Amino acid sequence: MEISTIQSLLERLFPVCRSITGNGVRRTLEILREIVDFNITEIPSGTTCFDWKVPDEWNITDAYLEDEEGNRYADFKFNNLHVVSYSEPVNKWLEFKELEPHLHSLPEMPEAIPYRTSYYKRDWGFCLTHRSLAEIDRSKRFHAVIESDLKPGSMTYGDIVLSGKSDQEYLISTYCCHPSMGNDNLSGVVLWAALLHEIQSLDLYHSYRFVIIPETIGAICYLSEHSEAMKKISGCLLPSNVAGPGRLGYKKTFIGDHTIDRIVEQTFLENGIEPVIYPFDILGSDERQYSSPGFRIPTGTICKDKYYEFQQYHTSLDNLEFANAGQLYETLQIYLGTIHNLEMNRNYLSRNPNGEPMLGKRGLYKSIGGSLVQPAHLGNKSHRDFKYKITTQKLTAGSDLDAMRWLLFYADGSKSLLDIAELINLPMSQLFGAARTLEEHGLIEEIQTGE
Amino acid sequence: MEISTIQSLLERLFPVCRSITGNGVRRTLEILREIVDFNITEIPSGTTCFDWKVPDEWNITDAYLEDEEGNRYADFKFNNLHVVSYSEPVNKWLEFKELEPHLHSLPEMPEAIPYRTSYYKRDWGFCLTHRSLAEIDRSKRFHAVIESDLKPGSMTYGDIVLSGKSDQEYLISTYCCHPSMGNDNLSGVVLWAALLHEIQSLDLYHSYRFVIIPETIGAICYLSEHSEAMKKISGCLLPSNVAGPGRLGYKKTFIGDHTIDRIVEQTFLENGIEPVIYPFDILGSDERQYSSPGFRIPTGTICKDKYYEFQQYHTSLDNLEFANAGQLYETLQIYLGTIHNLEMNRNYLSRNPNGEPMLGKRGLYKSIGGSLVQPAHLGNKSHRDFKYKITTQKLTAGSDLDAMRWLLFYADGSKSLLDIAELINLPMSQLFGAARTLEEHGLIEEIQTGE
Amino acid sequence: MEISTIQSLLERLFPVCRSITGNGVRRTLEILREIVDFNITEIPSGTTCFDWKVPDEWNITDAYLEDEEGNRYADFKFNNLHVVSYSEPVNKWLEFKELEPHLHSLPEMPEAIPYRTSYYKRDWGFCLTHRSLAEIDRSKRFHAVIESDLKPGSMTYGDIVLSGKSDQEYLISTYCCHPSMGNDNLSGVVLWAALLHEIQSLDLYHSYRFVIIPETIGAICYLSEHSEAMKKISGCLLPSNVAGPGRLGYKKTFIGDHTIDRIVEQTFLENGIEPVIYPFDILGSDERQYSSPGFRIPTGTICKDKYYEFQQYHTSLDNLEFANAGQLYETLQIYLGTIHNLEMNRNYLSRNPNGEPMLGKRGLYKSIGGSLVQPAHLGNKSHRDFKYKITTQKLTAGSDLDAMRWLLFYADGSKSLLDIAELINLPMSQLFGAARTLEEHGLIEEIQTGE
Repeated sequence: MEISTIQSLLERLFPVCRSITGNGVRRTLEILREIVDFNITEIPSGTTCFDWKVPDEWNITDAYLEDEEGNRYADFKFNNLHVVSYSEPVNKWLEFKELEPHLHSLPEMPEAIPYRTSYYKRDWGFCLTHRSLAEIDRSKRFHAVIESDLKPGSMTYGDIVLSGKSDQEYLISTYCCHPSMGNDNLSGVVLWAALLHEIQSLDLYHSYRFVIIPETIGAICYLSEHSEAMKKISGCLLPSNVAGPGRLGYKKTFIGDHTIDRIVEQTFLENGIEPVIYPFDILGSDERQYSSPGFRIPTGTICKDKYYEFQQYHTSLDNLEFANAGQLYETLQIYLGTIHNLEMNRNYLSRNPNGEPMLGKRGLYKSIGGSLVQPAHLGNKSHRDFKYKITTQKLTAGSDLDAMRWLLFYADGSKSLLDIAELINLPMSQLFGAARTLEEHGLIEEIQTGE
Repeated sequence: MEISTIQSLLERLFPVCRSITGNGVRRTLEILREIVDFNITEIPSGTTCFDWKVPDEWNITDAYLEDEEGNRYADFKFNNLHVVSYSEPVNKWLEFKELEPHLHSLPEMPEAIPYRTSYYKRDWGFCLTHRSLAEIDRSKRFHAVIESDLKPGSMTYGDIVLSGKSDQEYLISTYCCHPSMGNDNLSGVVLWAALLHEIQSLDLYHSYRFVIIPETIGAICYLSEHSEAMKKISGCLLPSNVAGPGRLGYKKTFIGDHTIDRIVEQTFLENGIEPVIYPFDILGSDERQYSSPGFRIPTGTICKDKYYEFQQYHTSLDNLEFANAGQLYETLQIYLGTIHNLEMNRNYLSRNPNGEPMLGKRGLYKSIGGSLVQPAHLGNKSHRDFKYKITTQKLTAGSDLDAMRWLLFYADGSKSLLDIAELINLPMSQLFGAARTLEEHGLIEEIQTGE
Repeated sequence: MEISTIQSLLERLFPVCRSITGNGVRRTLEILREIVDFNITEIPSGTTCFDWKVPDEWNITDAYLEDEEGNRYADFKFNNLHVVSYSEPVNKWLEFKELEPHLHSLPEMPEAIPYRTSYYKRDWGFCLTHRSLAEIDRSKRFHAVIESDLKPGSMTYGDIVLSGKSDQEYLISTYCCHPSMGNDNLSGVVLWAALLHEIQSLDLYHSYRFVIIPETIGAICYLSEHSEAMKKISGCLLPSNVAGPGRLGYKKTFIGDHTIDRIVEQTFLENGIEPVIYPFDILGSDERQYSSPGFRIPTGTICKDKYYEFQQYHTSLDNLEFANAGQLYETLQIYLGTIHNLEMNRNYLSRNPNGEPMLGKRGLYKSIGGSLVQPAHLGNKSHRDFKYKITTQKLTAGSDLDAMRWLLFYADGSKSLLDIAELINLPMSQLFGAARTLEEHGLIEEIQTGE
């Protein structure tokens, strides 16, 4: 996907007022469906999902806080963060002391409107800059107006499964419940769609389940509705906060050295990038649900900049000046490279396990022996299954003859291509190219490992 | 137990002439029984214990070595170290060259009387300062008098089992066979009694077997007499050399990272103390017997200063100026903290394993979301089962909400509270408090793991 | 074996023109059989060995390249490296441009004749110094003469099994197919024979299979001909490049911490030598065959200097000035020490597993207790099974009493003598001596572990 397409998606989606239910999510998914296919599902309010219930649906048309002279301190139409998400309707004149418990600001960031929610307790409130709050004449009376609607409806999510040949299915999940903030998590929403767009038409080896849901309640409902399928998921990537100006990072799965972790780290290595590594932490996103004891799906997040790690997090300053398409594109390459590497991560069995097979008679070995340097002219076969461009591999490729020898040596079915790449420090794509050559000569065969 | 009580025990017990059998041990146990309850058992001389036999009982009333002019070089009544323990009776006038093989001194520590024994070979001897030995006029004749008694009797030990709810039993064992030396091991004897005193009346989770025995032969006999019970012991703490002026230390079990080792190290960490760590060594005390191939009880020793590590070891300079109650008290806190942590080391199973349970509807979560800092007001529930004071936790407590979330995340029964504490770097007492809260809300349940 | 005997073997064997088949190998094995016994086997050309076939036999009597004036640029009788090994017969007058594709030289080493082969493609060629090549007047015509013979015959190898008591068999394999080069691999050939000579008449514990073969095709045929026996091999040492002037080194097995690796590293440690450690690499010698998926024999090589690591490798400069008997002798000591340690690597079971056995009643413990230093007077029993001299142990021996206590402690059958030596940092020979003493007193017994 072009950077300009990404930027235009960011700009169209940014103003939409999303929450965990309501038309904001519907509108967001509708825009994404202009470029990628996936299914939309509505879960009625009141549906029980394990320990939770889908709440009433929330919609909002307008909201403002003004004084007797018509000075506005918060205005939904100017910035949807001005209203506490899930505020019940209100239309009242109040003294400042009655109003005060309903106001939220950030003294340490006086120019920022904070992001606040009250999903499961009926309440209402306004978020305003601390500068505005400080300027209020507390002797005045104030008109609090929130034209919202909280009643039984449904919660909306999107999903699609791209089916591959292997018995492994990976989950790509993001959350679409945050209002106008760029990095958290409009960036994740757009990257999710771009990733789906890039691989949707490929002939895939593994299966990939793309899920886009409201955070927490959405993930819990999705697990509840697809319980059997989700217990079989091999691993998950969870795009979130992917378009900031800082360093690329990786938040590990709860296992820490799962295939997901290793393949992401291999991808960074092959691209010559050293990411900031974050250990698993229970303070996070839907990995909390996916990795819970009943499911234990190892879930990793490639990010830029990670939530909690940038000052603008959960405020109006996390906008499209902070997050942009060029930055998102960099992160997208790592997600694509990771999936590319996952696709190539196969196990092989030698058909000539006793001693080395004779490469010379198959034209895979030079005829004059004794010299030190081996020729390297197998060409680059590894990209033929993949149509997208990945950045230049920074992990230097070695001789293809060596790659073939190592593959033959380890081809007892117990080691994946990733295992071998880590052991001998070669890019997976070179090993995959060598594997293809060996397969064509009948020297190895791919096996399913059931991992 | 108050420091003054400890000091007074040390002073009363110091002069008693203990050996592996005899009235010294009996008198020692009798004094301890003034403050704690335990059983006394007598094993007759000649009883076979695996490869060993209980020796004849040894008692002594007086002993001295003097020359023709009545100059005394060794005098039992002045210091019981002057006589080689288990010396047979003697009353002879001797030339110096006949006497010399029976004299023991330490040239490198001329003011110290060494500690020597001859339990299993009939012999006699005097231990004297090297200064005294050097002053002897070797042309004189000498009167060697040892009024001892070596005949069939019995060997004495004490024990008691405090029964808890779990299926795990821990051993707390010390040795009471050393005569007047303070750190080795009157300090261990007194700490053993103080520890028993502190936990004797508590409602305990695990069972604790307190054993006080003569070193080596006592431990072997105890294993022989309680063979079946001892094969079921989960681990052992062996107080020994616990009241020196140096740094607190820990001698590891032969496994090195057994629960015993990890819980002791966690306790030191929580108290902000970095102990000297000693690897397991076959040169030691009764861990040699308890950890032998037939029993393999992992045995650790918290010490201050460890045997072999101080110059005064096994001499008359290991006295109550070297070892004192204040120092013993510091070590006692680590033993108590270790048992406290052992008590809290439980495994939990989530009753809501699918996704996170909803904490909000149970009042365990704030209603306004989106902000960074979580409130921490669960209070401190962890100490309610324990009446003694432990030193301030130096491992800083985190938010109780996080503690609950981590517990819920790991609550698949496979991880103990210690495992979780190590993983997330929180004090066990905070996790235990959080576990209690979650149990009260029916969110987790304790399970037996049979470890 | 004396250094002078080694030197005389090197000098007699150096001029022989070896290849993968032919009289050079036969003559080499014949000379070795003057000092050691082993069997000779001939495998007919055309025999199928897994994916390979034994090639026609190659013999050569003369070869030279000269110009019209009789100037010689390559002369087999001066140095057999001048001819590409397995060159087909030729006798032609050629223009330089016809000759050029058949010439091999090393521009970066102008004084060296390179070593080249063309085993499996019919071809011919001369190897000459780059200086000679540069001096050639390319306008002349040249007479290329190779008096060789390529026809069905057989491939020759040698082997012998020395049978021991245990159920473990180790392989000692080297390759004898290289013409006149000293370190690679005449040194390995001579060390192989010297090692066999040293242990051939000993009363061995393990079995040792000594194999001397042409590289690659020889190893593959040997595996094919002795498939069942080779699947039972416990490990392999592969002497190769053992007489250079550089540091001793060790190339690890593909497992990396196999018993073979650990015992070699223990041997270096006991000798106070820190070797250069090389990880396993598929670029190597017959470990590629022995460790292939069908056999997986862990194979290590103690070397000095390793192939690829010295500039003279695979050239005429790898001669007997580079490699010599004194240097080979140093490496031989490490091979002997390694086998010595392998021989002692046994597992023991205590006959008194409950508590410590009483050493005193068996005269293994001093009678006066309490002092710090233990006597060490068991003598050195460990060498009695071995007649050869090994270098002074640099890993300092401890007290024999401690060695006995540790052995008794670990004597549950699960730990080998090597495991114990590593754990407590004592030389294996001291532990073995202590084990013998304990066995004589009926305290432990040796067990087979089936490893």
